[in-house]
Amino acid sequence: MSGHRAIRIDDPADPRIAGFSDIRERDLRRQHGQFIAEGTVVLRMLADADLRAASGFQMQAVLLLENRLDGLTEILANMRGDVPVYIAGKQVMNAIAGFDIHRGVLALGTRSNARSASELVTSLPESALVVAAAGISNHDNIGSIFRNAAAFGADAVLLDGECCDPLYRKAIRVSVGAALKVPYAITDTTGTLISLLHDRGFALWGLSPRGELDIRAIPASARMALLTGTEGEGLPQHVMASVRTARIAQAPGLDSLNAATATGIALYSIASAMLRI
Amino acid sequence: MSGHRAIRIDDPADPRIAGFSDIRERDLRRQHGQFIAEGTVVLRMLADADLRAASGFQMQAVLLLENRLDGLTEILANMRGDVPVYIAGKQVMNAIAGFDIHRGVLALGTRSNARSASELVTSLPESALVVAAAGISNHDNIGSIFRNAAAFGADAVLLDGECCDPLYRKAIRVSVGAALKVPYAITDTTGTLISLLHDRGFALWGLSPRGELDIRAIPASARMALLTGTEGEGLPQHVMASVRTARIAQAPGLDSLNAATATGIALYSIASAMLRI
Repeated sequence: MSGHRAIRIDDPADPRIAGFSDIRERDLRRQHGQFIAEGTVVLRMLADADLRAASGFQMQAVLLLENRLDGLTEILANMRGDVPVYIAGKQVMNAIAGFDIHRGVLALGTRSNARSASELVTSLPESALVVAAAGISNHDNIGSIFRNAAAFGADAVLLDGECCDPLYRKAIRVSVGAALKVPYAITDTTGTLISLLHDRGFALWGLSPRGELDIRAIPASARMALLTGTEGEGLPQHVMASVRTARIAQAPGLDSLNAATATGIALYSIASAMLRI
Repeated sequence: MSGHRAIRIDDPADPRIAGFSDIRERDLRRQHGQFIAEGTVVLRMLADADLRAASGFQMQAVLLLENRLDGLTEILANMRGDVPVYIAGKQVMNAIAGFDIHRGVLALGTRSNARSASELVTSLPESALVVAAAGISNHDNIGSIFRNAAAFGADAVLLDGECCDPLYRKAIRVSVGAALKVPYAITDTTGTLISLLHDRGFALWGLSPRGELDIRAIPASARMALLTGTEGEGLPQHVMASVRTARIAQAPGLDSLNAATATGIALYSIASAMLRI
């Protein structure tokens, strides 16, 4: 698009930008499926997803600090032509958002036609790598799971019903937009998630400091899935009992890896075993 | 120690707890070597370090929210007997610190007799693993380097003069106290750091998405060092030209790993090659 398409907003109460108002307050009660994307990298990922019908993501509007417009020409030029691009001065933008938007790049997105976990798993190729997460309520950790899944070419992410929303603003940001790229679906319980993967022939490995095998020793198979739990508690005992488990070798002492790093190492190891990287 | 040693503070201006006052303000101008440790895990690490004379760390005082005292009996019992333990109610503690101390566990520490980088490297055993960092100004990333160094049994961390202080409050917290455990030293420039390691027989590998070798392919040697740079920029070109470099294999596309995860994977790979884990 050319610069002339940008629509100037001077009134923070302008109904055209209502979707961007009180962002932090609305983070907490935003409907699943509507979300805010922040920053240039994430804007680019949303624009890409919007152009892939199969992604299920649509971009509804963009709101930029006026001085950011010039730097975003390439992304805006490749966006669907009917997405409105609003610009505002710093004071107006902060008044809209309800806090100091120092990055100055926001987009409003929606997710529609989300596939069920069963549909998603059915759609996967013969050789597939899945990251599954149980009970992860921390937005940083959900974001990092997607970031790692993208880095190591996972085909899908499956979340159980206890995981937090990967489309929460901070989770998308920490994922560096990967939450808009790697297909995902949500199951009701961890049990459903495990059954689904087992039924479709996935070798499912639970990651735990008490895992039975060193992760470097787990055998490669065509369909593999890594199951991760929370940083403090890890996977609950009943989950550990229903899957095979693997550990990351560490120096003696307390388990010391953070959740993102542990998931990254485990995925790296599995993707290596599958000869995918 | 027994509970009776705890000293109650009712006046936020009490000179005995002056070292804890205006923590955030003082974070910025605290002298190198004096630091605040936050939280139970870090308190335990500082208490451990304080008992090891070679660590160079001393605990000066502890300040606890009164209701935390009972849960810390074991740590306090193992502390050096002459370290004062102050307790305060929530309002007084917040008034001292200058913000809402929700963890309620603080300690004031100092670092003395820090060894020079040369002394530290000279003290290392025949087989040694070192993590070196160049230009890392982000406290999260410095903290995560120490956390990963501890997880994979690195013998030392070397920082160049452009790195931020690992004893900054947030860096210690992100390191989960590993900044108080893994010996470290600071060199003036990256060049000095590189020369020091080369001179002492270390195979030094710079980590970069453009690295010459896949990190899984680098040969093991008795003394190995991993050199990491900033997340965005990576290692500067003149540094890349003066060391051998390695990359982490990833799915095609942009480099997508965060700094902590990349360092974790690289260290894991090197520690594996050295048969240390």
